[in-house]
Amino acid sequence: MSAEPIVYLTGNFVPASQAGLKIYDAGIVLGATATEFTRTFAGELFRLDDHLRRLFRSLKYLRLDIGMDLARLREITRELAAHNLPLLPPGAELGIIHFVTPGEFRVYAGSAGAGGSSGPTVCIHSMPLPLHLWKETFVQGAHLVIASNRHVPPQCMDPKMKYRSRLHYYLADLEARQVDPKASALLLDLDGNLTETGGANFLLVRNGAVCSPTTRNILPGISREVVIELCAELGIPFQERDLQPYDAINADEAFLATTPYCLAPVTRINTMPVGDGLPGPIFRRLLAAWSHKVGVDIGQQVLGATVASA
Amino acid sequence: MSAEPIVYLTGNFVPASQAGLKIYDAGIVLGATATEFTRTFAGELFRLDDHLRRLFRSLKYLRLDIGMDLARLREITRELAAHNLPLLPPGAELGIIHFVTPGEFRVYAGSAGAGGSSGPTVCIHSMPLPLHLWKETFVQGAHLVIASNRHVPPQCMDPKMKYRSRLHYYLADLEARQVDPKASALLLDLDGNLTETGGANFLLVRNGAVCSPTTRNILPGISREVVIELCAELGIPFQERDLQPYDAINADEAFLATTPYCLAPVTRINTMPVGDGLPGPIFRRLLAAWSHKVGVDIGQQVLGATVASA
Amino acid sequence: MSAEPIVYLTGNFVPASQAGLKIYDAGIVLGATATEFTRTFAGELFRLDDHLRRLFRSLKYLRLDIGMDLARLREITRELAAHNLPLLPPGAELGIIHFVTPGEFRVYAGSAGAGGSSGPTVCIHSMPLPLHLWKETFVQGAHLVIASNRHVPPQCMDPKMKYRSRLHYYLADLEARQVDPKASALLLDLDGNLTETGGANFLLVRNGAVCSPTTRNILPGISREVVIELCAELGIPFQERDLQPYDAINADEAFLATTPYCLAPVTRINTMPVGDGLPGPIFRRLLAAWSHKVGVDIGQQVLGATVASA
Amino acid sequence: MSAEPIVYLTGNFVPASQAGLKIYDAGIVLGATATEFTRTFAGELFRLDDHLRRLFRSLKYLRLDIGMDLARLREITRELAAHNLPLLPPGAELGIIHFVTPGEFRVYAGSAGAGGSSGPTVCIHSMPLPLHLWKETFVQGAHLVIASNRHVPPQCMDPKMKYRSRLHYYLADLEARQVDPKASALLLDLDGNLTETGGANFLLVRNGAVCSPTTRNILPGISREVVIELCAELGIPFQERDLQPYDAINADEAFLATTPYCLAPVTRINTMPVGDGLPGPIFRRLLAAWSHKVGVDIGQQVLGATVASA
Amino acid sequence: MSAEPIVYLTGNFVPASQAGLKIYDAGIVLGATATEFTRTFAGELFRLDDHLRRLFRSLKYLRLDIGMDLARLREITRELAAHNLPLLPPGAELGIIHFVTPGEFRVYAGSAGAGGSSGPTVCIHSMPLPLHLWKETFVQGAHLVIASNRHVPPQCMDPKMKYRSRLHYYLADLEARQVDPKASALLLDLDGNLTETGGANFLLVRNGAVCSPTTRNILPGISREVVIELCAELGIPFQERDLQPYDAINADEAFLATTPYCLAPVTRINTMPVGDGLPGPIFRRLLAAWSHKVGVDIGQQVLGATVASA
Amino acid sequence: MSAEPIVYLTGNFVPASQAGLKIYDAGIVLGATATEFTRTFAGELFRLDDHLRRLFRSLKYLRLDIGMDLARLREITRELAAHNLPLLPPGAELGIIHFVTPGEFRVYAGSAGAGGSSGPTVCIHSMPLPLHLWKETFVQGAHLVIASNRHVPPQCMDPKMKYRSRLHYYLADLEARQVDPKASALLLDLDGNLTETGGANFLLVRNGAVCSPTTRNILPGISREVVIELCAELGIPFQERDLQPYDAINADEAFLATTPYCLAPVTRINTMPVGDGLPGPIFRRLLAAWSHKVGVDIGQQVLGATVASA
Repeated sequence: MSAEPIVYLTGNFVPASQAGLKIYDAGIVLGATATEFTRTFAGELFRLDDHLRRLFRSLKYLRLDIGMDLARLREITRELAAHNLPLLPPGAELGIIHFVTPGEFRVYAGSAGAGGSSGPTVCIHSMPLPLHLWKETFVQGAHLVIASNRHVPPQCMDPKMKYRSRLHYYLADLEARQVDPKASALLLDLDGNLTETGGANFLLVRNGAVCSPTTRNILPGISREVVIELCAELGIPFQERDLQPYDAINADEAFLATTPYCLAPVTRINTMPVGDGLPGPIFRRLLAAWSHKVGVDIGQQVLGATVASA
Repeated sequence: MSAEPIVYLTGNFVPASQAGLKIYDAGIVLGATATEFTRTFAGELFRLDDHLRRLFRSLKYLRLDIGMDLARLREITRELAAHNLPLLPPGAELGIIHFVTPGEFRVYAGSAGAGGSSGPTVCIHSMPLPLHLWKETFVQGAHLVIASNRHVPPQCMDPKMKYRSRLHYYLADLEARQVDPKASALLLDLDGNLTETGGANFLLVRNGAVCSPTTRNILPGISREVVIELCAELGIPFQERDLQPYDAINADEAFLATTPYCLAPVTRINTMPVGDGLPGPIFRRLLAAWSHKVGVDIGQQVLGATVASA
Repeated sequence: MSAEPIVYLTGNFVPASQAGLKIYDAGIVLGATATEFTRTFAGELFRLDDHLRRLFRSLKYLRLDIGMDLARLREITRELAAHNLPLLPPGAELGIIHFVTPGEFRVYAGSAGAGGSSGPTVCIHSMPLPLHLWKETFVQGAHLVIASNRHVPPQCMDPKMKYRSRLHYYLADLEARQVDPKASALLLDLDGNLTETGGANFLLVRNGAVCSPTTRNILPGISREVVIELCAELGIPFQERDLQPYDAINADEAFLATTPYCLAPVTRINTMPVGDGLPGPIFRRLLAAWSHKVGVDIGQQVLGATVASA
Repeated sequence: MSAEPIVYLTGNFVPASQAGLKIYDAGIVLGATATEFTRTFAGELFRLDDHLRRLFRSLKYLRLDIGMDLARLREITRELAAHNLPLLPPGAELGIIHFVTPGEFRVYAGSAGAGGSSGPTVCIHSMPLPLHLWKETFVQGAHLVIASNRHVPPQCMDPKMKYRSRLHYYLADLEARQVDPKASALLLDLDGNLTETGGANFLLVRNGAVCSPTTRNILPGISREVVIELCAELGIPFQERDLQPYDAINADEAFLATTPYCLAPVTRINTMPVGDGLPGPIFRRLLAAWSHKVGVDIGQQVLGATVASA
Repeated sequence: MSAEPIVYLTGNFVPASQAGLKIYDAGIVLGATATEFTRTFAGELFRLDDHLRRLFRSLKYLRLDIGMDLARLREITRELAAHNLPLLPPGAELGIIHFVTPGEFRVYAGSAGAGGSSGPTVCIHSMPLPLHLWKETFVQGAHLVIASNRHVPPQCMDPKMKYRSRLHYYLADLEARQVDPKASALLLDLDGNLTETGGANFLLVRNGAVCSPTTRNILPGISREVVIELCAELGIPFQERDLQPYDAINADEAFLATTPYCLAPVTRINTMPVGDGLPGPIFRRLLAAWSHKVGVDIGQQVLGATVASA
Repeated sequence: MSAEPIVYLTGNFVPASQAGLKIYDAGIVLGATATEFTRTFAGELFRLDDHLRRLFRSLKYLRLDIGMDLARLREITRELAAHNLPLLPPGAELGIIHFVTPGEFRVYAGSAGAGGSSGPTVCIHSMPLPLHLWKETFVQGAHLVIASNRHVPPQCMDPKMKYRSRLHYYLADLEARQVDPKASALLLDLDGNLTETGGANFLLVRNGAVCSPTTRNILPGISREVVIELCAELGIPFQERDLQPYDAINADEAFLATTPYCLAPVTRINTMPVGDGLPGPIFRRLLAAWSHKVGVDIGQQVLGATVASA
């Protein structure tokens, strides 16, 4: 193997520069892709098994058999990480992406069958975690705007599966940036309940409790699971319930939970400040506890990130 | 240029064998892709401008500026067709696919910005139309099964835009094949109205009229537009209205309309025969009129197709 | 055969007094019954074939094979009518009811299979049309009340099939009578659109046109079909569209269409008069035209009906 | 009284062979029926009062006054059981069905009034519990398929009332058997949440907790109540929440709860194995605890059942 | 009477300076108000009877009896107009507002009854039409933004009644101005279909036809009725159907219809130009035809309006 | 200041007799009003700060800046109460109403801007609490009727904000009084779940627990908060969940919670008795505990109220 990062592609490791997807792949033609995003803390993969278990739940839902079990996929992932980690700049962390598609879409490829394929495409690739991208978010807080475009309901595509048919997120983000160029979209479900953003779980604080939308309408994020655990450890009540824009606008605090940067405070919703417009005490307690748990000062890591790390 | 087919990729023609999409492209990461599929009849591109106009409507909806207008895109398309057509086997037709994505997804690519990109990916590629794939459909008729998984509503992703975040189609097709291995899914909207299949418009015949779901829930297909024109020419009433599974099951005839094979009879829905289970007279009149219009016997062309043509 | 009316019950004619349904029949246990109601005018069966065609559409939807075709069922029906008609009091008309159930419900019957049955129950029975029941309705007009209980949507049970799982009608009628003891319920669909009553189609007149809810939410009644034909003959526009309570309350006229009494004026909705509270001119024109078509003065027949005729 | 089982029918005990419902009864014409199903364990009626209380809640909802209170209905039921129990084959258990309808439907019966009746029909009948019907289910586990046909929402007919307008169950079961001939349908509500099957409550196990759909969309079954009690006794968490097909497909275990056979493991959903495809440990603990509570080895009883017992 | 404009208030004419509503009025406490807005062209009241007929439909829907019929209300209106018109500056037009509330809300007023009142409040007042307010709209075109806040559905408050419980419009307009300070909100219904703005009907042009949302979700505006008439006169097809944001964004033209300024071009939707971003040819034809019909150059009148006219 | 009660109106105290709202105010024209209702017990304002905090949440939701903070508004409110309390008849209590509107609606006022205004209208006024109005309710219990007209969903106007665009309440109350002249409406949400009445929260008792609809669909009333606290103090379980009409009809008890009279038993729903038709034991315990908390026998105070107190 080379000094170049490697990519796992349906049975083989290849140099990253040679990894591409055929334009006939169902992942491109249908957006039919299950995926996961895992990261390291100080070079250690964080909750890889939780991510892989969720991936296998997605695969079962999609009736995709990738011809290996979780143990084997873990082994391949660790092998890829072992190769690519040493190539990172000092102080950088690794982000690992798994994705699986049904494989070649035969109509476009010119071979036989209706919507069928030769077998799933399984890809694992990595990148230096671009923590510098979220530096401003950590300093100023994230901005959210509630979009008119709605989240796809579970009877069409279940958000509990991490998938890539995400055009609705893209459309909602377009709207959000019309209101506030720094903002991401906070999507509503068809009944007007809060769900999530295109890349993170949304959580709010009210009367000292952390409140989350229900798993009916969101990805049950691994970072959100960490928040639930930390809340239990810190004695902070955690509630799952239907929430509406009124709740977001009048929250005491709000924050995002997601693998790349763990937690980020939300300081503006629809251009209005959340609470006093600053990261709140419960957010800070959770971030500190998480940092302690993984032995990395997460906030400092993001603030100290440089483009060079990418 | 080579004797190999060429692909247009964001500004350049490249040999097909060198055309791939980066695994960081938003078309792969988000399924954020607008697309079109155009075909030839006897080597002449059919209604290319209708397809391109629809593509530009999709691009406006997605706020994507590809830096050229319809005239220029038509010119490039014709240039690609002129190169690739002579490479077809005798008697084969060309299928041309346009697709546009927002471009590189920066988080995964390791560059700056949230959801941003360096500029749209514009791709045009072609293939010999694999008409042999639908031979059995023409002989036996298409089979459809109404799935429990529902079509994405327009307030999430508008089906009037031809897009590739199509995981819901994939899920519905999985269901359909559990009932009838030859079947495709006929999707319902959230209110239980008929919409379309993953690859074609659905039309039924009742009391001598052709009935279609409304454009609220479907792609207003170019082939469906041809059907509307042919109905007008043949004096067949054409109605657009909300239809339910009862209407499909009790239709006198049903058929699919789509670019690759134009029209195909639907002979089974939920395993039950449609009408007498044979292609119906209105389907046959429409197919004949279409064949006459394009100077190609469409049915014969499909029946005579060979794998070699692919 | 006897001087008693006969009933057709799954293969045999039996005297009415011996016709009963086993308490294990799926028609009782599940309310799983397709049905039709046909009547005579001056002793002639009216549009029997339309009723039977609709019944066969219901049977196809329910995947029930009764082992005979429309021609045979028509023959049996005519035989039953020929026997029972002479037993009517002078001047009376015959009402004929067809109903089909999946047959014995095995769990309750103690035999084998889950939800299965030995074969469909097919029943045809008749009665003197109790026209006296609607005399007051013809004199004073029908009263309707819009209930809070909603009509079952087509994705649960399609109202285009005439079925007997009608508990929602029963519940809505209970509500209606709380407001107005003479009233029947006018049910709304889940979106708040007008649908139908438990026994009749609802039609209203606005600016000289007859307006009907769409067939998405209602039984496409044979009497309603007659209204459509009569409107065409009389030059009265007929429109099908989503209507709301506002439209009913502010209609110029309203009326019911149903097999037993053909047409009846609606004079009160939610206790408020419709128009001037009297049967309107378009209702009267339609009733006159219908009477002319069948050679019976329908209004006079109802007004002259006596309990003796029952 | 005879050696034949007796049936209670609106005031009288009659021999079972003479018990039938008039084809004019609203239970047949409208499917307007409230019902209960109670069974014995070792000849003792199980939770009869819970069933009767639920019946009286249904009757209040339907504004039906049957002219007696719970105590009197219990007395009649016990009298019927006392007569019919000795007629059972050795080792058999008794199933008792109560049902109440609004009585004769006057329009069809030829008497007076719109939708009215002479008084409710009250029927109690019994049968040997056909446990042999579920033997295969106990050996192989139940199979479920998620149907496209949806459960009727509570604003049309509240499922908390055990009623017999169940055509939607029938339609969904037809779909299920197209996929898997051994399967029953698992119905979704209009929002795509799991509800119940046509004859049982659906429960799943996830991370050691038993999860149930909410009572918004299901019958709060007496057997499900037993499960709640047993969970409390065994220290198994019990949660009520909106669940989606993803949850069913990825459950660790799933099972059905219903009066006739108490509990049955679900081993396949949409043809895919639930967990490892075998009855799970929590199911087995619950079944054992239930058996202990009633002094009958429920599993053995089903496995040992013979057709002769029917 | 004075040289001051007069106001009609529940039985009396009073000087405008003395007209106020008690803070206990149900119009204030409940927003329970039916209203109309009528204007003059060259001092002649335009379609007063159409407005009054719609008001009486609203009153019937609200069960409000104002103790006079349309003829009497017309007479009072004309008397008020006759007094106030001469007080207008030269060239100005009169706007007349009718509104009716249920009257005093007793709980707040301290008198008896639950929600009751002493009798309806009937108010008619006028103002110089502030045409200068729309000058910029006529020069640059109106801007619209599709808001996430939705229109109230007809099963809550029917938009066919012109009412004043309009907080949802206010909320949507707040959103619109966050995107584009000049914009008004274009509201979607709960299914994501286009409805109307807070003050005008929305119409679009596609392939030469004028398309409108259906009257299910909008006020059937008098100005919209004029457009329908003018379309018929000019041979322009007019279609009523469910439309989605995609249709608005890709329209050839769009415009607003409303009493104060009749018609205004919509040149931006969600900040994107409609068509070429200029008032379109069909808009101009309709405005010219309307001007001709009323003998006033409507565009010139708006462009020439001065604040003095207010 | 005078011996007349005073009213605070946008910066000034004025005598009540001079307080009126301009007919151009957005509170009248749009029903765009946030409001609160606070009362005294024995002359002491009860939970004023809770009311003011909720008002400020409403103002944030409406983006209305009234130019003062909670402390200043509390001060003004106390000043008004101090003046108006001594003017009450002996034994009377004070009701204080806050309301805020966006101010003058410019189109109607004849000044500039689209929907804009000169600044919010802030009004505080008081009245002797008309407790005699609810005497009969305390003696006989409140009557409720479930209306067909539905509550406005939170995606149109969030009920967590106390607002005055309440035409839907008015319409529902009209329906309720058609069934039972003493009844108020109990509104359902669009899915058929129970919400609230036009003036109070609805709570029911089942198996010893107090059950409430969720805050998705209701005002989280201050009195309801008191009930939650009292339940905790008394050891009565309190549950928030979706409830349906079946639950209301079959509740053991039901009651209303609202500021003016705190708690009132509901004894009839849809004309049927709740439980035994008398105020229930949990209602009585809660009322007694509340009376003890505020040092006023609430029931006696209502029963002893005289019109003179108004």
